[in-house]
Amino acid sequence: MHNYAVGVLGANGYAGAELVRLLARHPFARLTLATSRSEAGRPLRAPGLRQPIALEAIEAADLSRCDVVLSCLPHGESARWVAEAREAGARAIDLSADLRVDGDDSPPLAGASVYGLSELARDAVRDAAVVANPGCYPTAALLALAPLLRRRLVAGPVIVNAASGVTGAGRSPKRELLYAEVAEDFRAYGLGNTHRHLAEMRVHGGRVAGGEVDLVFTPHLLPIRRGILETIYVPLAERLSEPAARALWADDYAAEPFVDVLPCGAPSLADVVGTNRVAIGVAPVAHSAAPALVVVAAIDNLLKGAAGQAVQNLNLMCGWTETEGLPC
Amino acid sequence: MHNYAVGVLGANGYAGAELVRLLARHPFARLTLATSRSEAGRPLRAPGLRQPIALEAIEAADLSRCDVVLSCLPHGESARWVAEAREAGARAIDLSADLRVDGDDSPPLAGASVYGLSELARDAVRDAAVVANPGCYPTAALLALAPLLRRRLVAGPVIVNAASGVTGAGRSPKRELLYAEVAEDFRAYGLGNTHRHLAEMRVHGGRVAGGEVDLVFTPHLLPIRRGILETIYVPLAERLSEPAARALWADDYAAEPFVDVLPCGAPSLADVVGTNRVAIGVAPVAHSAAPALVVVAAIDNLLKGAAGQAVQNLNLMCGWTETEGLPC
Amino acid sequence: MHNYAVGVLGANGYAGAELVRLLARHPFARLTLATSRSEAGRPLRAPGLRQPIALEAIEAADLSRCDVVLSCLPHGESARWVAEAREAGARAIDLSADLRVDGDDSPPLAGASVYGLSELARDAVRDAAVVANPGCYPTAALLALAPLLRRRLVAGPVIVNAASGVTGAGRSPKRELLYAEVAEDFRAYGLGNTHRHLAEMRVHGGRVAGGEVDLVFTPHLLPIRRGILETIYVPLAERLSEPAARALWADDYAAEPFVDVLPCGAPSLADVVGTNRVAIGVAPVAHSAAPALVVVAAIDNLLKGAAGQAVQNLNLMCGWTETEGLPC
Amino acid sequence: MHNYAVGVLGANGYAGAELVRLLARHPFARLTLATSRSEAGRPLRAPGLRQPIALEAIEAADLSRCDVVLSCLPHGESARWVAEAREAGARAIDLSADLRVDGDDSPPLAGASVYGLSELARDAVRDAAVVANPGCYPTAALLALAPLLRRRLVAGPVIVNAASGVTGAGRSPKRELLYAEVAEDFRAYGLGNTHRHLAEMRVHGGRVAGGEVDLVFTPHLLPIRRGILETIYVPLAERLSEPAARALWADDYAAEPFVDVLPCGAPSLADVVGTNRVAIGVAPVAHSAAPALVVVAAIDNLLKGAAGQAVQNLNLMCGWTETEGLPC
Repeated sequence: MHNYAVGVLGANGYAGAELVRLLARHPFARLTLATSRSEAGRPLRAPGLRQPIALEAIEAADLSRCDVVLSCLPHGESARWVAEAREAGARAIDLSADLRVDGDDSPPLAGASVYGLSELARDAVRDAAVVANPGCYPTAALLALAPLLRRRLVAGPVIVNAASGVTGAGRSPKRELLYAEVAEDFRAYGLGNTHRHLAEMRVHGGRVAGGEVDLVFTPHLLPIRRGILETIYVPLAERLSEPAARALWADDYAAEPFVDVLPCGAPSLADVVGTNRVAIGVAPVAHSAAPALVVVAAIDNLLKGAAGQAVQNLNLMCGWTETEGLPC
Repeated sequence: MHNYAVGVLGANGYAGAELVRLLARHPFARLTLATSRSEAGRPLRAPGLRQPIALEAIEAADLSRCDVVLSCLPHGESARWVAEAREAGARAIDLSADLRVDGDDSPPLAGASVYGLSELARDAVRDAAVVANPGCYPTAALLALAPLLRRRLVAGPVIVNAASGVTGAGRSPKRELLYAEVAEDFRAYGLGNTHRHLAEMRVHGGRVAGGEVDLVFTPHLLPIRRGILETIYVPLAERLSEPAARALWADDYAAEPFVDVLPCGAPSLADVVGTNRVAIGVAPVAHSAAPALVVVAAIDNLLKGAAGQAVQNLNLMCGWTETEGLPC
Repeated sequence: MHNYAVGVLGANGYAGAELVRLLARHPFARLTLATSRSEAGRPLRAPGLRQPIALEAIEAADLSRCDVVLSCLPHGESARWVAEAREAGARAIDLSADLRVDGDDSPPLAGASVYGLSELARDAVRDAAVVANPGCYPTAALLALAPLLRRRLVAGPVIVNAASGVTGAGRSPKRELLYAEVAEDFRAYGLGNTHRHLAEMRVHGGRVAGGEVDLVFTPHLLPIRRGILETIYVPLAERLSEPAARALWADDYAAEPFVDVLPCGAPSLADVVGTNRVAIGVAPVAHSAAPALVVVAAIDNLLKGAAGQAVQNLNLMCGWTETEGLPC
Repeated sequence: MHNYAVGVLGANGYAGAELVRLLARHPFARLTLATSRSEAGRPLRAPGLRQPIALEAIEAADLSRCDVVLSCLPHGESARWVAEAREAGARAIDLSADLRVDGDDSPPLAGASVYGLSELARDAVRDAAVVANPGCYPTAALLALAPLLRRRLVAGPVIVNAASGVTGAGRSPKRELLYAEVAEDFRAYGLGNTHRHLAEMRVHGGRVAGGEVDLVFTPHLLPIRRGILETIYVPLAERLSEPAARALWADDYAAEPFVDVLPCGAPSLADVVGTNRVAIGVAPVAHSAAPALVVVAAIDNLLKGAAGQAVQNLNLMCGWTETEGLPC
């Protein structure tokens, strides 16, 4: 099995550190390069790392040493370095939001990237030169909704009520992320359907549905470190029994190594944190005049929602087993 | 000002202890009796208590010593003791769910009780012999929805996505409430619109609306001690601008000492925990074909959601200033 | 009763905000001025505030409007503004470390300040022009040790093992104080007796003892918001029985409104957080050849350890009841 | 390599569940039997488990199916079942406290058991029929102190100030372990050197030292799920420089796969939680008349403090690589 050389840009944030942790122990990937502006010159610390490497400033890094470059750089800065990686001959996985939606203001590469929600785009990812790794909230929402979207069963606006642990907000010091501000608190943000991830969900949900998808998305900040739970309300044209509803997910995901469809009840974050899995629970809405389902999806925002799915995509791109090096 | 004698049944749970804490420092209420089966015989500990009192077993307590009895006994057990209090000549406030809904299986007193959501039932509470103190989830939901319900602006199922701190689940030791189970976790329960509080919301929301109210309610357990945040999605018949929407709440609650309508954004639990206030944020839903509002309401589940509202009702019943002895 | 005008410098940090919260509801203090460089121009938010005031930049503030100025400015910056307050004719309470120890490098005012550990320096505080408000760790340690120090019962190095919630580290954004770094972690710092508070404890402990005090101090960072617990090991020349040991504290603190000497066991932070009290537990060391006591002291670091004690000192300076406006 | 059959008694507590988790993925151990009285009849859930097994009531379990039995049963109940396992022909590892100290009241097997602090008893564990797996607090304390004890450098009572996450207190529902009681709190227990683990530390520390060891041990309960941090103060006969001090640990543990001696500073729980490692920091005490060291040791109480060390001992007993199946 070919041992591809991989590099991580922005290795010192939460997603970057998680990616390094996974790649250091990955049986086939050879972690060759890692950048961090603030830590440049220091040795990279990662249990299992087979060859010592030093963190570099990205400007000084020779990206041509990598077969695949994975970028955890901030939104707005990442696309430029993905383009540099391409010019240096490497394939790339971009964990930032830069390339996920191909709009008027998007970087040129956005149009040439594969949106890497692994379960929905497996074949395209295998051959991709550039993968746009999905956002954490869209990953959970799209996996939860795909069985309904592709069957065109949605009959009105879908309400996505989501809550994320604080690592989703990054590792840059901000007052509102201090322990004393977050502990024992809970708050909504992006009220009124204004969060950036909405467009990503609508565009890629629309592709699954083959048409427009009406979504109302309200994210919340949880006083926990990692994990995303989304409670999704879906209006239907006709009632579905609980077994009939669950069968949609069970059928679609029967062969998926990272998707758990629960036999009853709702998932909790404890079911998935530390793993690359998504857990999904489904129930018809009782005591309401309108036919609807409640779907609850849980992921680890740093694994299936970021670094784990990036490694899943790397495995696909390199021809390795899709679960290689991933906790399940 | 007459100093009424008050008694607390079930003083050792979270709501009971909070009630004792408030009443011990209340300028006019005279805490005379407190029961706890497990702690019977021990002195009641409460900073500010003017006369020492010992906890009693409820069976041994002489309820006729009280002008008003406040019951924090468990659901199913409380109504019986409220009836005893009435027979002993006391008025009563029942913090359990027993008397909130007058259904086929309800205790006889349910039909004779006033549902004590103070802001909506002020006059009836003043004269009530028995007040059914509202549940924590319904308190936040009904205050958030009343301006829309009474104007009949709701045009479809209302989605109430709610999250509560663990004191809402009581103080009896259960494995799923242990620190090591709750910390760093988040989960939904009562999936599919099956939670007991739903009926309470529908009945009393229906009274405000003068008709049926279609609600879908999903509660979640937060890894915090106290606080409830509800994110509520309300379909409308026509679009409302943000100022027009906010004006509904601002107008209705302009004179309310315990209701904060935010000028922008969503409340967080930190705004209300430790107070008897409800904080409400409102925003129209952008980027959706269907006219709708998102309303977020936050309360302290042990104060406005239980003991605080009970004292607010006590103040009304005794003719005291409504805010007396309450943190705001 | 004269209503003195008071001002708070640095009202936006954790101690400053707590001080504002207390002063806004204080029955006699009239909060007249509050500074915050980052929030200058915004209205001060504090429930109970009788007259609206706007936050000012300190450089623009007229300190002569105050009878007493309380400074929560950072160490190194505070003393200068305390001197300005004195020149403007105000008395001052400095919550920073600047004036607590009168050493070679100390500002001139250090020699003229009263070290305001209220219980030990009540009379001097009453007449002080400048009070150096004690540090949080020294407050707990000195109150716990004073009964032994003044009787010269200590027979060797005293081990002070202390743990503090994160508000003790201030509100400036730093990576190591982010929620995701602090939660589920616990760590020692200042290992090897190198923390700044050590000198403060030794100097003021030495004054109580009338001689040198040998202290070994190791602070730790707790994943909580507020509270300090210190577990102190004191070698003795001779064994003391448990009743004899406890009597030392019970006798010395019998009349103290803010000191609780527990009848048995050790205090927990839950006993004191939200109050201005210190709770102290004492036990002789069993199963050891060397006579010794373990003393455990708990305080709220923002109240008795900072803003609460500052108000206690303000009460003394202004001739008000010592407990006025303080939670107990 | 022979695949030994192993069984876990008491698989549903925190240590038992952790043990099952490790053994299900262990490359050589074959998990064959697991008991849980409350869950009897249900399938054992463990990612990686190669053959499905059902939980059994211990009374119904055939222990002769196991080559090695690992008992996580409660103290007082465990020794009896370890004896049963021996009679059924199995070797055993007892994670309870029953066999750790051979005193007058101990079960007969205590005298025939090897105290399995792996790093200090490697050869004896290899050949042992019964291993008494050390307690969590003693594991950290003894590994931290061994370099000083075996050189007889300790010159007075050793102060062991320890703090543990709540999983150390077990999974049985108790009020004081509820989330709402533990969060934002911190407390000492066993004040005055009265905790059960003291005897274990003294006996086995004494064996390392070849004589009596005077210890003062104060445990505390941390508001975290897992991890133990011990801050240990050791009086010395003569001063040691920092390099000379650190060299003691660095030399003794140079070849140890699970012991990290830090180059400077103190470990934090984040360094070790999720691993089987102990991290140790050392510093001479400055500013004190008495020569002394502060040693800080950190472990994951469920791994190196329980299930991890049990697997480490299992690896030794079965002739496998000592680190097999263990996170490092």
